[in-house]
Amino acid sequence: SLLSNQRVVQEQDQIMLIETNLDDVTGEELSDATQILLEKGAKDVWTEPIIMKKGRPAYKLCLLAAPTKSEELVKILFEKTPSIGVRQQLMNRKIMQRSVKSVKTRFGDIHVKYLSYDGFSKISLEHDELVDLARKNKVAVRELRNRIMEFVQNN
Amino acid sequence: SLLSNQRVVQEQDQIMLIETNLDDVTGEELSDATQILLEKGAKDVWTEPIIMKKGRPAYKLCLLAAPTKSEELVKILFEKTPSIGVRQQLMNRKIMQRSVKSVKTRFGDIHVKYLSYDGFSKISLEHDELVDLARKNKVAVRELRNRIMEFVQNN
Amino acid sequence: SLLSNQRVVQEQDQIMLIETNLDDVTGEELSDATQILLEKGAKDVWTEPIIMKKGRPAYKLCLLAAPTKSEELVKILFEKTPSIGVRQQLMNRKIMQRSVKSVKTRFGDIHVKYLSYDGFSKISLEHDELVDLARKNKVAVRELRNRIMEFVQNN
Amino acid sequence: SLLSNQRVVQEQDQIMLIETNLDDVTGEELSDATQILLEKGAKDVWTEPIIMKKGRPAYKLCLLAAPTKSEELVKILFEKTPSIGVRQQLMNRKIMQRSVKSVKTRFGDIHVKYLSYDGFSKISLEHDELVDLARKNKVAVRELRNRIMEFVQNN
Amino acid sequence: SLLSNQRVVQEQDQIMLIETNLDDVTGEELSDATQILLEKGAKDVWTEPIIMKKGRPAYKLCLLAAPTKSEELVKILFEKTPSIGVRQQLMNRKIMQRSVKSVKTRFGDIHVKYLSYDGFSKISLEHDELVDLARKNKVAVRELRNRIMEFVQNN
Amino acid sequence: SLLSNQRVVQEQDQIMLIETNLDDVTGEELSDATQILLEKGAKDVWTEPIIMKKGRPAYKLCLLAAPTKSEELVKILFEKTPSIGVRQQLMNRKIMQRSVKSVKTRFGDIHVKYLSYDGFSKISLEHDELVDLARKNKVAVRELRNRIMEFVQNN
Ligand code: NI
Ligand code: NI
Ligand code: NI
Ligand code: NI
Ligand code: NI
Ligand code: NI
Ligand code: NI
Ligand code: NI
Ligand code: NI
Ligand code: NI
Ligand code: NI
Ligand code: NI
Repeated sequence: SLLSNQRVVQEQDQIMLIETNLDDVTGEELSDATQILLEKGAKDVWTEPIIMKKGRPAYKLCLLAAPTKSEELVKILFEKTPSIGVRQQLMNRKIMQRSVKSVKTRFGDIHVKYLSYDGFSKISLEHDELVDLARKNKVAVRELRNRIMEFVQNN
Repeated sequence: SLLSNQRVVQEQDQIMLIETNLDDVTGEELSDATQILLEKGAKDVWTEPIIMKKGRPAYKLCLLAAPTKSEELVKILFEKTPSIGVRQQLMNRKIMQRSVKSVKTRFGDIHVKYLSYDGFSKISLEHDELVDLARKNKVAVRELRNRIMEFVQNN
Repeated sequence: SLLSNQRVVQEQDQIMLIETNLDDVTGEELSDATQILLEKGAKDVWTEPIIMKKGRPAYKLCLLAAPTKSEELVKILFEKTPSIGVRQQLMNRKIMQRSVKSVKTRFGDIHVKYLSYDGFSKISLEHDELVDLARKNKVAVRELRNRIMEFVQNN
Repeated sequence: SLLSNQRVVQEQDQIMLIETNLDDVTGEELSDATQILLEKGAKDVWTEPIIMKKGRPAYKLCLLAAPTKSEELVKILFEKTPSIGVRQQLMNRKIMQRSVKSVKTRFGDIHVKYLSYDGFSKISLEHDELVDLARKNKVAVRELRNRIMEFVQNN
Repeated sequence: SLLSNQRVVQEQDQIMLIETNLDDVTGEELSDATQILLEKGAKDVWTEPIIMKKGRPAYKLCLLAAPTKSEELVKILFEKTPSIGVRQQLMNRKIMQRSVKSVKTRFGDIHVKYLSYDGFSKISLEHDELVDLARKNKVAVRELRNRIMEFVQNN
Repeated sequence: SLLSNQRVVQEQDQIMLIETNLDDVTGEELSDATQILLEKGAKDVWTEPIIMKKGRPAYKLCLLAAPTKSEELVKILFEKTPSIGVRQQLMNRKIMQRSVKSVKTRFGDIHVKYLSYDGFSKISLEHDELVDLARKNKVAVRELRNRIMEFVQNN
């Protein structure tokens, strides 16, 4: 698989948090902007319901960007939303070291993330892969997750 | 005073709850619609942040109307928001019996609501009146509330 | 077009509101369940952030169903979420009369909904169609909406 | 165990939904009121963040009560919050048939709920019992849940 | 007009973000504090619904201040809310260059913001001005916005 | 009393804000993690409802930690939630100077916090102590608060 054996070694890096408050955008438009920002390379995009001045219901649109991408993403944000100004902050990230392996199970192949941080380790599965496998195997997603977690821990 | 000695005797009545989900309205527009619906006679209007289909951030706009006013308010809602359909439900209200009296205090006059329900009674002050009196008396709103509550309970 | 000239004449019908509170489901699972319930015929599905007993962050999952479909959708909800009970309520809907026409514009064809209610009428465009046309015409979605609204109102 | 072999046979009953909007209560007070209403017999109590008139941030306090308990709970709600009126609605509940059994596992005893509805069945564990057992067995809650689910399904 | 021809040339500046979590304030009080902080010079003030320790429903009150105003606004925040501590962070702002012009339209005069950032430009109208003009011209706000946007783009 | 006469003299210090977005955790699990992080020394922990990519309902888990504790708390957060990465930011805190005294009242002993900042001073009572005293004295919490505030201000 594409991702197998990929390792992320460093436990810390920096990420730009970019935020803007919007009381003049619709939910449809926010959803579109989120999708485009992700396609253009944002690491994460999310919205938070807030109450702005004059008691207006509103949303805070937030995104995380690699520092080298942040200029480009701010410009896209101005193009794709009514925002006329954003605030941003370089934040430190602490991340678990990860290596991804493709694992053969009796339900099919699945990517397993092996995560570790300062002596603690855990395993993570990709939700969308589980959903696909569950559909193919006609089994509930939660049960499939349990089975694969158990298989991986015993092998 | 206009409200003094007014009594609401019944403890139960009926109210129409009207709701619509909106993913194509801005916060500014929702705020305007809320204001207009209140001016046109809605008993209460509020919004709730929700997540609609396709994961869109959205708002549920809710209003309470006297049953005889609900037809008119639905039409205003269609005129003032992008909504193309609402759902509604007649609900029972349980309300505390209330009588309002204008009370003279050393901070100025204030309306006091005397509320009772099945042997339990309490007192309520109107927030906006307190804010005005607090400003005139150059005292904190909470402290003024305490003082007036104490005065009313002892007189 | 499939939808052209389709008319919805009645202004009122009934819809079943079905709700369940969930503190034992993940966002990923809620999102999946929403998608499945819509595919199986729910008229609308949405989630509301709530705070449940013991102060737990939670979600209320809500859906609207045709009364004849509600039994089937409750069963799917039990199968696809951890819910072990739902509450439901038959509500009245007030809906604008609508007829849909396919309209040729210089940007391409688009479905236009003509809506009316008690003498008031308005026009609605489907957001996803606008997004597609905007991409093809390399124009901003809001500007395209304005242009088409103006074209439709003048023709 | 107290709950073993207890069965809930009916699949439908009625429940009173009681709601009030509050812009004059603190979070501490809402949390207290929730706790008291549950102690006094409410089936469920929750809060929803809303935006009330004048754009005020507020909460909708909701509770479910057996119809025979609703009068008593409304009175407690009036006593323990600033509410001066509630709206209520009798709703139908669809509930999965359930029987509870105490099951011996190698991690300790745990109550298992066997749930069924129209031919579909599933199993549910009580979260707080899992948390206790996980602490005693020095194992993660999710892993313990998986192990017990697997044990129960195979026995 | 006061604002005509005013230009904001710089594309970046710094703004202080000030935040405090409150579980002991009412919505009415939060709304008042928001209003006062804006009157005293805060650039923006908003609230976010959160869940605090002990599962209490609560609000995060956030404000943006010019760095030279932040000390004064923190003191006002302590005076006007129950907060006993705030956290703050100097953030960078990226803002679109703007120039404001008063434009004569057949509906009346309106201020138009011409915004640009790194070669991208857009136009913004002030919502409250639109609402006033719409009322005077007896036309829907959205339609008026469309008409004025079209007029401005063609002139 | 343990806290009497304790003084916090400094008006400023630094605090680490740690955040992670979670779409794969349940409300029950979030509530548990919050409790554990507080027990392990977090200064504050809260959750915010957000909407993540693919429109998933989710929560942002936030915590404040003394800079010397932040490493340890990040590790606990990785152990007790599905998070595989956090972002963090050292923020400045502005805090009111406080001294706590145990005060004898006719309702019982209670700790009173005397707070001051740049010439402004106020008083704060601990909510949970008030709730206990109110129960013992069979009086409403709000009324007890008023009485004690008045007593403290006059003595
Ligand atoms: Ni937030
Ligand atoms: Ni995931
Ligand atoms: Ni009067
Ligand atoms: Ni009020
Ligand atoms: Ni739509
Ligand atoms: Ni038992
Ligand atoms: Ni709601
Ligand atoms: Ni549970
Ligand atoms: Ni001007
Ligand atoms: Ni604006
Ligand atoms: Ni003490
Ligand atoms: Ni407190």
